[in-house]
Amino acid sequence: MLKGISHTGIAVKNLNEAVKVYQTLGAELGEIHNAPESGMRAAMVSAGGDTLELIEPVGDRGVIGKFIESRGEGIHHLCIEVDDIRKTLADLAAKGIRLIDTEPRQGIEGMVAFIHPKSMNGVLIELLEK
Amino acid sequence: MLKGISHTGIAVKNLNEAVKVYQTLGAELGEIHNAPESGMRAAMVSAGGDTLELIEPVGDRGVIGKFIESRGEGIHHLCIEVDDIRKTLADLAAKGIRLIDTEPRQGIEGMVAFIHPKSMNGVLIELLEK
Repeated sequence: MLKGISHTGIAVKNLNEAVKVYQTLGAELGEIHNAPESGMRAAMVSAGGDTLELIEPVGDRGVIGKFIESRGEGIHHLCIEVDDIRKTLADLAAKGIRLIDTEPRQGIEGMVAFIHPKSMNGVLIELLEK
Repeated sequence: MLKGISHTGIAVKNLNEAVKVYQTLGAELGEIHNAPESGMRAAMVSAGGDTLELIEPVGDRGVIGKFIESRGEGIHHLCIEVDDIRKTLADLAAKGIRLIDTEPRQGIEGMVAFIHPKSMNGVLIELLEK
């Protein structure tokens, strides 16, 4: 079952500056996650009852750096929370949806898997089971 | 005050096909909005407690058609609900944020105004006061 949007991931060049911009809108800074092995660091920002994840590239080998290089800053992915990620992946695969991860893997907040944007109208979707 | 994300707008080539794709994920079809004068029609889709707006171009003069032509399908905008849109616009302008609409205008769900993506890390933000 689909529970809702966990967060919207936004690729930004400068995390500190981006946090200030979204604070201007009234958003509030939450946790900072460092993931140098993935070439990124991220700030979780509360937007009312919702969450934005501002993601800055670290080094030049990560997907966020490559994304900004080819498309510029902007929304990188939509994270959707489900209650059973393995069942969701099986359902999607059975319906011909192209998956980046056929098996869930451990993320910061729980088990995660990405769906290919080519199957989701150009939207990179991260599934999350907390 | 920022209340939360009202919806995420996704530009799609074929609305009926896109609705089916998101239903596969467990989302549920809600209202359809026709706005031929803006060159679009849209389906509101419930994703758990959150909402996606799948937007299809109608004719060849609308912003959605131009967006898809230049960037392909994908997330077009993020709609953020605020309780006082005029105050929010004034606050943003005072802090040097570039606005597309300096005055709110009537939208389908309430008064709306867009903020320029150049000031929001590449994200086109629609403000909404219901």
